[in-house]
Amino acid sequence: GFATIDNHRELRVGHPEVIYCEGKTVEQVKGIVEFMLTKEKNIIATRANKEMYRAVKSICEDANYNELGRIITIKKEKEKYTESYIAIVSAGTSDLPVVEEAYETARAMGNKVIKIVDVGVAGIHRLLAKLDLIRGAKVIIVVAGMEGALASVLGGLVDKPIIAVPTSVGYGANFGGLSSLLTMLNSCASGVSVVNIDNGFGAAYSASIINKL
Amino acid sequence: GFATIDNHRELRVGHPEVIYCEGKTVEQVKGIVEFMLTKEKNIIATRANKEMYRAVKSICEDANYNELGRIITIKKEKEKYTESYIAIVSAGTSDLPVVEEAYETARAMGNKVIKIVDVGVAGIHRLLAKLDLIRGAKVIIVVAGMEGALASVLGGLVDKPIIAVPTSVGYGANFGGLSSLLTMLNSCASGVSVVNIDNGFGAAYSASIINKL
Amino acid sequence: GFATIDNHRELRVGHPEVIYCEGKTVEQVKGIVEFMLTKEKNIIATRANKEMYRAVKSICEDANYNELGRIITIKKEKEKYTESYIAIVSAGTSDLPVVEEAYETARAMGNKVIKIVDVGVAGIHRLLAKLDLIRGAKVIIVVAGMEGALASVLGGLVDKPIIAVPTSVGYGANFGGLSSLLTMLNSCASGVSVVNIDNGFGAAYSASIINKL
Amino acid sequence: GFATIDNHRELRVGHPEVIYCEGKTVEQVKGIVEFMLTKEKNIIATRANKEMYRAVKSICEDANYNELGRIITIKKEKEKYTESYIAIVSAGTSDLPVVEEAYETARAMGNKVIKIVDVGVAGIHRLLAKLDLIRGAKVIIVVAGMEGALASVLGGLVDKPIIAVPTSVGYGANFGGLSSLLTMLNSCASGVSVVNIDNGFGAAYSASIINKL
Amino acid sequence: GFATIDNHRELRVGHPEVIYCEGKTVEQVKGIVEFMLTKEKNIIATRANKEMYRAVKSICEDANYNELGRIITIKKEKEKYTESYIAIVSAGTSDLPVVEEAYETARAMGNKVIKIVDVGVAGIHRLLAKLDLIRGAKVIIVVAGMEGALASVLGGLVDKPIIAVPTSVGYGANFGGLSSLLTMLNSCASGVSVVNIDNGFGAAYSASIINKL
Amino acid sequence: GFATIDNHRELRVGHPEVIYCEGKTVEQVKGIVEFMLTKEKNIIATRANKEMYRAVKSICEDANYNELGRIITIKKEKEKYTESYIAIVSAGTSDLPVVEEAYETARAMGNKVIKIVDVGVAGIHRLLAKLDLIRGAKVIIVVAGMEGALASVLGGLVDKPIIAVPTSVGYGANFGGLSSLLTMLNSCASGVSVVNIDNGFGAAYSASIINKL
Amino acid sequence: GFATIDNHRELRVGHPEVIYCEGKTVEQVKGIVEFMLTKEKNIIATRANKEMYRAVKSICEDANYNELGRIITIKKEKEKYTESYIAIVSAGTSDLPVVEEAYETARAMGNKVIKIVDVGVAGIHRLLAKLDLIRGAKVIIVVAGMEGALASVLGGLVDKPIIAVPTSVGYGANFGGLSSLLTMLNSCASGVSVVNIDNGFGAAYSASIINKL
Amino acid sequence: GFATIDNHRELRVGHPEVIYCEGKTVEQVKGIVEFMLTKEKNIIATRANKEMYRAVKSICEDANYNELGRIITIKKEKEKYTESYIAIVSAGTSDLPVVEEAYETARAMGNKVIKIVDVGVAGIHRLLAKLDLIRGAKVIIVVAGMEGALASVLGGLVDKPIIAVPTSVGYGANFGGLSSLLTMLNSCASGVSVVNIDNGFGAAYSASIINKL
Ligand SMILES: Nc1ncnc2c1ncn2[C@@H]1O[C@H](COP(=O)(O)O)[C@@H](O)[C@H]1O
Ligand SMILES: Nc1ncnc2c1ncn2[C@@H]1O[C@H](COP(=O)(O)O)[C@@H](O)[C@H]1O
Ligand SMILES: Nc1ncnc2c1ncn2[C@@H]1O[C@H](COP(=O)(O)O)[C@@H](O)[C@H]1O
Ligand SMILES: Nc1ncnc2c1ncn2[C@@H]1O[C@H](COP(=O)(O)O)[C@@H](O)[C@H]1O
Ligand SMILES: [Mg+2]
Ligand SMILES: [Mg+2]
Ligand SMILES: [Mg+2]
Ligand SMILES: [Mg+2]
Ligand SMILES: [Mg+2]
Ligand SMILES: [Mg+2]
Ligand SMILES: [Mg+2]
Ligand SMILES: [Mg+2]
Repeated sequence: GFATIDNHRELRVGHPEVIYCEGKTVEQVKGIVEFMLTKEKNIIATRANKEMYRAVKSICEDANYNELGRIITIKKEKEKYTESYIAIVSAGTSDLPVVEEAYETARAMGNKVIKIVDVGVAGIHRLLAKLDLIRGAKVIIVVAGMEGALASVLGGLVDKPIIAVPTSVGYGANFGGLSSLLTMLNSCASGVSVVNIDNGFGAAYSASIINKL
Repeated sequence: GFATIDNHRELRVGHPEVIYCEGKTVEQVKGIVEFMLTKEKNIIATRANKEMYRAVKSICEDANYNELGRIITIKKEKEKYTESYIAIVSAGTSDLPVVEEAYETARAMGNKVIKIVDVGVAGIHRLLAKLDLIRGAKVIIVVAGMEGALASVLGGLVDKPIIAVPTSVGYGANFGGLSSLLTMLNSCASGVSVVNIDNGFGAAYSASIINKL
Repeated sequence: GFATIDNHRELRVGHPEVIYCEGKTVEQVKGIVEFMLTKEKNIIATRANKEMYRAVKSICEDANYNELGRIITIKKEKEKYTESYIAIVSAGTSDLPVVEEAYETARAMGNKVIKIVDVGVAGIHRLLAKLDLIRGAKVIIVVAGMEGALASVLGGLVDKPIIAVPTSVGYGANFGGLSSLLTMLNSCASGVSVVNIDNGFGAAYSASIINKL
Repeated sequence: GFATIDNHRELRVGHPEVIYCEGKTVEQVKGIVEFMLTKEKNIIATRANKEMYRAVKSICEDANYNELGRIITIKKEKEKYTESYIAIVSAGTSDLPVVEEAYETARAMGNKVIKIVDVGVAGIHRLLAKLDLIRGAKVIIVVAGMEGALASVLGGLVDKPIIAVPTSVGYGANFGGLSSLLTMLNSCASGVSVVNIDNGFGAAYSASIINKL
Repeated sequence: GFATIDNHRELRVGHPEVIYCEGKTVEQVKGIVEFMLTKEKNIIATRANKEMYRAVKSICEDANYNELGRIITIKKEKEKYTESYIAIVSAGTSDLPVVEEAYETARAMGNKVIKIVDVGVAGIHRLLAKLDLIRGAKVIIVVAGMEGALASVLGGLVDKPIIAVPTSVGYGANFGGLSSLLTMLNSCASGVSVVNIDNGFGAAYSASIINKL
Repeated sequence: GFATIDNHRELRVGHPEVIYCEGKTVEQVKGIVEFMLTKEKNIIATRANKEMYRAVKSICEDANYNELGRIITIKKEKEKYTESYIAIVSAGTSDLPVVEEAYETARAMGNKVIKIVDVGVAGIHRLLAKLDLIRGAKVIIVVAGMEGALASVLGGLVDKPIIAVPTSVGYGANFGGLSSLLTMLNSCASGVSVVNIDNGFGAAYSASIINKL
Repeated sequence: GFATIDNHRELRVGHPEVIYCEGKTVEQVKGIVEFMLTKEKNIIATRANKEMYRAVKSICEDANYNELGRIITIKKEKEKYTESYIAIVSAGTSDLPVVEEAYETARAMGNKVIKIVDVGVAGIHRLLAKLDLIRGAKVIIVVAGMEGALASVLGGLVDKPIIAVPTSVGYGANFGGLSSLLTMLNSCASGVSVVNIDNGFGAAYSASIINKL
Repeated sequence: GFATIDNHRELRVGHPEVIYCEGKTVEQVKGIVEFMLTKEKNIIATRANKEMYRAVKSICEDANYNELGRIITIKKEKEKYTESYIAIVSAGTSDLPVVEEAYETARAMGNKVIKIVDVGVAGIHRLLAKLDLIRGAKVIIVVAGMEGALASVLGGLVDKPIIAVPTSVGYGANFGGLSSLLTMLNSCASGVSVVNIDNGFGAAYSASIINKL
């Protein structure tokens, strides 16, 4: 009664439905996973707490939990990872939970991924030192909070599509991520498009589609 | 004195600098174009008024002006258009200026482009009727104002990357495009990333990079 | 001393006052219910926690509690349900608390009600599959969070009045339901009017008046 | 090329598409009307300026223009007005443009309509004096700017559905109608649902559907 | 070291400094009260929790605590209450904490005060029934949350100054009291001035000055 | 047809209705004045442009126009000005239009008024030099834009009620007067209540009621 | 009557009052300048239009007008420019009006100033190329619109105080400069403090005080 | 893996990187400190809770913790404090946590500092009494919540650079410090620049650079 699972989604958009756990009960999450286990497809559940993970684990030994990223993944498909890679570049240590959500999602969707973290613009040489590695990617995810300037700076240095994720890291006039969201939307460098605040999942999803083109 | 043109940009990001005319004088726009004409590259000037166009035309016979899109383009390169195409899908007739800005930008960057306009969700069969054409694209630009629901609906129907452009079309609680911007950022369908309100240029730029991957 | 109960309300507006429990003490809620029990009318108390329910139950055996919907109802009238029905259509599993508040309210006011849940626009065929059932209603309540596009899409598919309830389901640029509220207010489809964020009660109240016209 | 007119809309939602003229050129408005004239249906064009009216008049003698309401109507159907009526109640003289937009829309959709204007809450006896007339309506449209309190007050006095239209009348902390919009969404009286700021058309559309139930 | 108490305030503005306890430690509150006890003046401490009250009580037997209003008062002056009175009028039961803060402040400043609670505009006859009592006041405090329409309605019915206090009672598009704040600032009735959201203290302070003119 | 004039208002609230001209046509303003001229009462019309003034003048020789304050006044009553006075204190020269609106309103309502202008807190000695004059008033109106700090500073220096009017003077993060509005609502000094941005009329109205207590 | 000029300001804060012309009449500006000409001090009038300049010129031959910066300066003091310099660094050509306002102010206050314009982060090598010149300054003014990332980047590269000026250059989600304002306030690099949007004058004033320490 | 420490920062900007503990785990904070201890430089960690302090203390006996200011400092350099001093001036007792963060930062960077607290504008003589001490400073930090008027008032009284820190002290229309932030950005007095809400660290950092010029 509580869910109308979108069985055809994979046919239409190439990937099965992903479970957004926030606002769902543990029982609901478990029920939806149970149903999805009947298919031979990888399963992703985002914004999951530990209790949800334990409930899922009880019905599926193979369930994995990334605690920092609050994400459950179940690999059912024989993985064939892409050769081209997605680079996830982040500004500070506090942005790591979003990095991990993006990383797990991209992996579960079959992508090769590299992470380059804590290279924010306050010390720009840290970024410049990693430029070759970043330029080697097919698509780049930029994760940054506070003022989010990393996306603009990188936008002026690479010729690859950038998916920017503003994070809610910061305080005061950051207004829960609004500051970095607006920064990224107003990027003076081109080639940057933006997903919701803290939406590591969405960034990885878009990046995965592009990486597989 | 008034400009430090970024000559190396093409080497770095694959495309020369684009002129944003808002807030510049006619003389400044003309001066920058004059300088860029010395290179053998296509030139794009966005948010240009008619007077700016006339000034540019006076120094370059080949300048084109799309009045609805307020964009000047000068084609210097022997065009080799892509085989894969970008689909620009828009919700209503009032969104056309943004569609045109995106169209001209994508063309000037060498892309094959198709336009599917006035297919907003209030009459969803109009969209469904064009689904095959849209699905044939390599990357999709969605342009919509008012409540901007078109991006979410399309996100659930295709397996291609979507660049969504909210427009400022609407009134009252639309708050100058804020309504459609938030809609698109909160899309319940995945694979949608967003650029600034009315930023047809930026959407086309991102789409072009992806189309050429 | 703490309440001036509106005894005449039923004469004026056809329904007795409803108790909004947020910001009231358990004692206050109990006291108001005690007074209302002296009338032969159904009683509704919204936003009630479990403790309030227990206090009410202690003075009235017939009290019912919908935990998900956080709503207490007491049926005193011999029910004569309407023949025409209200359809409550919701986008995702996380919207269920609001659905339940609306459902209980509409029932307590004597309406036939059907629920069609988890049919958000990310998988639009789920909605299309239920269209006949929805079209059979006399009035429709749409409940949706995140970007709230369901109201617009449905508005273009039916010829019945739609009461849209934005929910606070979502995060980041959802800003506590602002995103879906603005979407619904800017609906490009007509026939949609909107109540406050998470206001399942208010939607059901309006729908009930209309259903009984 | 600039429009994909929704021919089936009438079949689906009972009324043909309505033209929103803001952001369209005179030529586009004229072109759309020209096409719609081929059907035997009433035509409504909102937010139309005088020049648009003249262009429409030049191809259709029967076009009417309500200048205050900025709305063009063309009556092609043999009118059969409803017996039950819609009451449009407004707070101040400055709200009249929105009243007129609502009035013309409701009339063009075949409704009997009465107007009760300038009865805002600052002089509440003016409202009370008209209460019988208002109560006689099947559905009520409330139009109010500034603080928009009229909707709440009326909501506590009648047992009919109320569609509230906040207007942008006011200044300073009115923030272009935000003040009255929020007031109406937070109405402590029930039975009130809300449309966009200044959206007289939308209110009338919803009211018309309800009036014809 | 942590406070520079404003000893001269009474000379300048007629009343000693009032202690705002939010953000202060229990020790700080106790220390400031200790110092003020050396004067022969009434003491008021707002936003005080129970622990602060106990600390104050331990050094001053006469301290009183209004728990709902979260306010400590110590009466040192032989009270001579005013003959004219302040009327505190409130919309709903949930607004009582603010009513109590205003009441205690006004009393501690030596005013006769009457309270008329739960007479919101959803049932306007409740207000009309108390109109003589309200009109008898020298100055009126109106306390209301949700949409805050009570201030406008009363503004049109009395010829006395009204100090309006918006409360944070409500949810969703109430945005923590913003809705009622804007309503009151945009009041179409004159004679209404406004203090901060939930600021019962400030309203009583202003009303007291006026009542003693 | 376009107005329901509130004839009883004077009986209820002690002053006849005041005409708010914004959003009204010249004909409407003239018509309302014409009607009010039949009573023996002073007439006030705010936010009036020159054309409105000329129309009013054509039917009433005695009409006065304060161009800076955009306000028309017609004195029909034999004036008996109060002995106590209202002080209008303003921060900068750019705030003068609001000062004038307040001044004319207060005068038309029969008050003695003094103006002390351009004494903002950037040069606080200017304010201190006028303190005796300000303290002599029965009630004080403070008019200030930019950051609006004048109200707080004065609130700590006088024992009279202060009605604060934020103005829209400023730019950037002033956001049309929001900055000074918030400053005044959050005044750390007590005894300050606030009216809408640029609402000189409302401040004078409240001050007049208080001055006549 | 319209101004209380702050004659002592120079004694207190080291500089005479500066005239803010927005919202003043031409006559008022002229009158204030006339008065200030009686002192032997430089005069600055910001946000001045051409007509104001002509009026000032008519009474003072030495008046200068920077049209782009909309600022009038009159040099009465024998200039002794500082040896240390202020660097004004700006992101794009459209930011020049703010650069010019800052430049003229700093010059009129006796500072050596250098301008480095159009070196925004989209092409970061342009900035790096000028780093020595910037590092040679005693204090740095950064002027940037759109996403305003330049301040953060520079903050991580220099050891001098930075005064950041967000500009209103941009559109859509720039919200009149809000985007760059928030970016600068949330700078992840330290040593950056911020003035109001487009406030070139204020930045130069602060920089001048620092430069002269 | 979780951090890319900026080793060169001191060479570039004159001070080593400072640790922002919010959003980091205890382990991460400890790890970063451990690494930094290998250098002979003072260490600062802001927004640190007690548990983080204990972890740091366990690896470094010399670690100090200011509980009110939530800041850890480790002094490794032989201190040579400046002769000129920074004055930290604050409005109320509730602002002390921000004062302490600023104080510890300034001290750890080698500055002489004086604190003048609880001298808000509600009792302006308290401020005037300390004016000589404040004027003696080379640079001034102003810390104020609620309406934040202290910065403007002080700006008109001194000729030293002011770094203003808005605090989140307040409630209701304070909106988490927005009120004082806007006040300070719109200061009618010049010489005031602003850092983020509650950013005592940032203010001290800027002040320290200036104090050492
Ligand atoms: N972290 C996330 N952020 C945004 N959307 C998500 C996230 N995780 C899952 N989703 C989407 O949320 C939808 C599920 O919503 P529901 O029906 O409430 O389960 C799916 O369509 C997913 O694509
Ligand atoms: N969930 C709800 N949302 C909005 N209004 C409500 C809700 N529940 C009850 N009410 C209304 O709140 C009012 C009661 O407020 P009070 O006087 O504070 O008890 C009644 O008029 C109800 O119609
Ligand atoms: N462009 C500007 N931005 C902000 N403040 C300014 C500007 N120009 C002048 N001012 C200040 O505005 C004040 C003059 O305001 P007023 O009394 O209205 O003339 C002076 O204190 C100046 O320091
Ligand atoms: N509830 C309240 N709301 C607003 N201001 C208050 C409140 N209680 C006390 N105050 C004021 O806060 C100031 C004390 O601030 P502080 O120096 O932080 O103790 C005094 O000037 C009081 O007049
Ligand atoms: Mg780091
Ligand atoms: Mg269309
Ligand atoms: Mg679902
Ligand atoms: Mg009227
Ligand atoms: Mg009640
Ligand atoms: Mg002045
Ligand atoms: Mg440039
Ligand atoms: Mg204090």
